[in-house]
Amino acid sequence: MIETRRRQIEVAASELFRSQGYAATSVRDIARALDLQGASLYSHVASKEDVLFAIVDRAASRFEDALRAAEAAADANAVGPLERLASIVRAHATLVAREPELASVFATEWRHLGGERRSSILARRDAYEGRLRAVIADGMATGDLAMTDPAIAAAFLLSALNGIAGWFRPDGRLSAEDLADRYADLAVRALAT
Amino acid sequence: MIETRRRQIEVAASELFRSQGYAATSVRDIARALDLQGASLYSHVASKEDVLFAIVDRAASRFEDALRAAEAAADANAVGPLERLASIVRAHATLVAREPELASVFATEWRHLGGERRSSILARRDAYEGRLRAVIADGMATGDLAMTDPAIAAAFLLSALNGIAGWFRPDGRLSAEDLADRYADLAVRALAT
Repeated sequence: MIETRRRQIEVAASELFRSQGYAATSVRDIARALDLQGASLYSHVASKEDVLFAIVDRAASRFEDALRAAEAAADANAVGPLERLASIVRAHATLVAREPELASVFATEWRHLGGERRSSILARRDAYEGRLRAVIADGMATGDLAMTDPAIAAAFLLSALNGIAGWFRPDGRLSAEDLADRYADLAVRALAT
Repeated sequence: MIETRRRQIEVAASELFRSQGYAATSVRDIARALDLQGASLYSHVASKEDVLFAIVDRAASRFEDALRAAEAAADANAVGPLERLASIVRAHATLVAREPELASVFATEWRHLGGERRSSILARRDAYEGRLRAVIADGMATGDLAMTDPAIAAAFLLSALNGIAGWFRPDGRLSAEDLADRYADLAVRALAT
């Protein structure tokens, strides 16, 4: 029950942070979105930054889980670097298309965290991007991927992927899965030899 | 002189809108960044939204000019669709790398405009994206570009390009021009037959 209320707070806050930004959102705004008094909200969370951290932490875990699952499937099927890259792109695109609020906070709103929490999220973001760079570098080493700058290629792909949150509509002509397939195709073509 | 002051206001406001978002920035913040009194700022601009519109309007013009110049060069040299696409990507990437504040307001902050102004900027953004889609569709028609969905391909490229504002450092290991060349290569590879 308490867990449910905290979850509702995170969902309402994610929507507000995404639509008007973290800085412009007050604890009172979050409370109002849930028909709560500000004081009542404070019995569940200590501060606005606590809510942001809970959301960013959950978002980071979701992206890490998606990456891990894509890599585990690639390992299990012993696929080459191109198919591994396609799986990772597909997993990331699907998650952004299905959960644009999560994707937005992981992509941008983490900047509002301070101190230790900011460092810890930054390290997880760096590790995630580092994994993508490593997959690209591995593919270059085997000759499956064209010689390129893995850091630039990873930044290019992650921006393209995270941008999905800004325009994709789940009720539009493409499903999240169709979209993810198109993005995987574009990514593979951009990097294949 | 008055023009100069307005320009200074726009530059200071762009930086604030980009770092903390439009909603969280007050006219007083903008005045403070320029060592002005709020009342004195109001002698130059009527409202915060006026400042935003001035910035977004200038940003739109810069991107339109860059696109027009890239297309004029492509016309003058009678290049094919792939080289035309590369020129457009190069021009857009260079502008984002050199002027990340302008790029950010054109990519996201225009959402805070209301009514007529919002519609007019939205129409210009749509026309810009429409031109990119048309170049992709033309390339598919001539067989230079692989069969793809021009709308998806244009969204993919524009997100990748606008993302440059979030990470590129002009004092880093790559110049804006080098970066633009890499992005043009990735874009051409992603779409070429």
